[in-house]
Amino acid sequence: MMEQREISKAVINRLPRYYRYLGNLMDSGVERISSGELSRIMGVTASQIRQDLNHFGGFGQQGYGYNVQYLHGEIAKILGLDRDYDTIVIGAGRLGQAISNYVGFRNRGFRIHAVFDRNPGKYKDLINSDAKLYSTDELADYLKEHHVDIAAVTVPSEAAKVIVPVLVKGGVKGIWNFAHTDLDVPDDVQVQSVHLSESLMQLSYKINH
Amino acid sequence: MMEQREISKAVINRLPRYYRYLGNLMDSGVERISSGELSRIMGVTASQIRQDLNHFGGFGQQGYGYNVQYLHGEIAKILGLDRDYDTIVIGAGRLGQAISNYVGFRNRGFRIHAVFDRNPGKYKDLINSDAKLYSTDELADYLKEHHVDIAAVTVPSEAAKVIVPVLVKGGVKGIWNFAHTDLDVPDDVQVQSVHLSESLMQLSYKINH
Repeated sequence: MMEQREISKAVINRLPRYYRYLGNLMDSGVERISSGELSRIMGVTASQIRQDLNHFGGFGQQGYGYNVQYLHGEIAKILGLDRDYDTIVIGAGRLGQAISNYVGFRNRGFRIHAVFDRNPGKYKDLINSDAKLYSTDELADYLKEHHVDIAAVTVPSEAAKVIVPVLVKGGVKGIWNFAHTDLDVPDDVQVQSVHLSESLMQLSYKINH
Repeated sequence: MMEQREISKAVINRLPRYYRYLGNLMDSGVERISSGELSRIMGVTASQIRQDLNHFGGFGQQGYGYNVQYLHGEIAKILGLDRDYDTIVIGAGRLGQAISNYVGFRNRGFRIHAVFDRNPGKYKDLINSDAKLYSTDELADYLKEHHVDIAAVTVPSEAAKVIVPVLVKGGVKGIWNFAHTDLDVPDDVQVQSVHLSESLMQLSYKINH
């Protein structure tokens, strides 16, 4: 933990990409890879790769390369992917359905147990069978009875502002926010936002410059 | 254009958030705002705000504040939001539906004309009436007959790798990529990726540290 505290946010932000590439290499049966070869397939410099991965205890050996599976496992631990997360989804609209039904999240330990919507009856056939559909009115009681690590918030901004205090009061420590607003939460609650509109604006900027 | 070339990527990445806050202020009828007040509501330092916004010609006046509507308009121009984008969506699954049906994109000039899917019949009632649903087989011909600025790619990685060359060949210059893979495109094609799995990993990292 002490070593990890010094890792910069920029390095942390790059870890999921390393994790993805190493996972693909594992799937292809690759056991070892040099920083030069990893550099080539990832399109970043070999020195960047060595710098980034040396934060995690110098897994690479000169002339021998990185052990793909080991490095993948170490990055998984750093990212917290060596455990499961009890997850719920707020909003059963199309985005909520997309998240609830994506098996990739489940495979990585994000276990979606429940989906909440103002109008659950409308969506009863659209959510996969592993997640139960509830009315938003039942959220506070659900949180009293169930441990929840992560809530994905897929409702519009105004609804999100009403729901998030209920999540916080119910002990949820991680909020994956898709609402197009910033959320006001206590320091011990983590928010990761996916602002789709802002991503699209980054694209329109790039197209014009 | 010459001035803008010197703006750092970090500043550009912050512009959509300024745009959002200024839009909210306009909606609330606020005409002028000081860097101090904007700092308070956005949760960044006033000096950061002055530094960022001074890139765009020093719109703020000492003791007078920023003209909200003017600054909103200037940022819109920089982000390329002062024009329309002919947009298509690849994949009519839940994520493709979410994007196709979100009126916020349309209101900002991203006009979604068509949605392509391997199995369009399956989704015919799920896409809004303004976008036409086509078979993916019709994509190359569609691109010969229609100008397309942006394609949102919401299909899995393997399908994305097959579709993207068709988009590039068809003249699409902007790809909004939701596939969990990096895309290989020529230099004159811009890619903006939304890697949902990686965002979720950032959250699990934060929860554990």
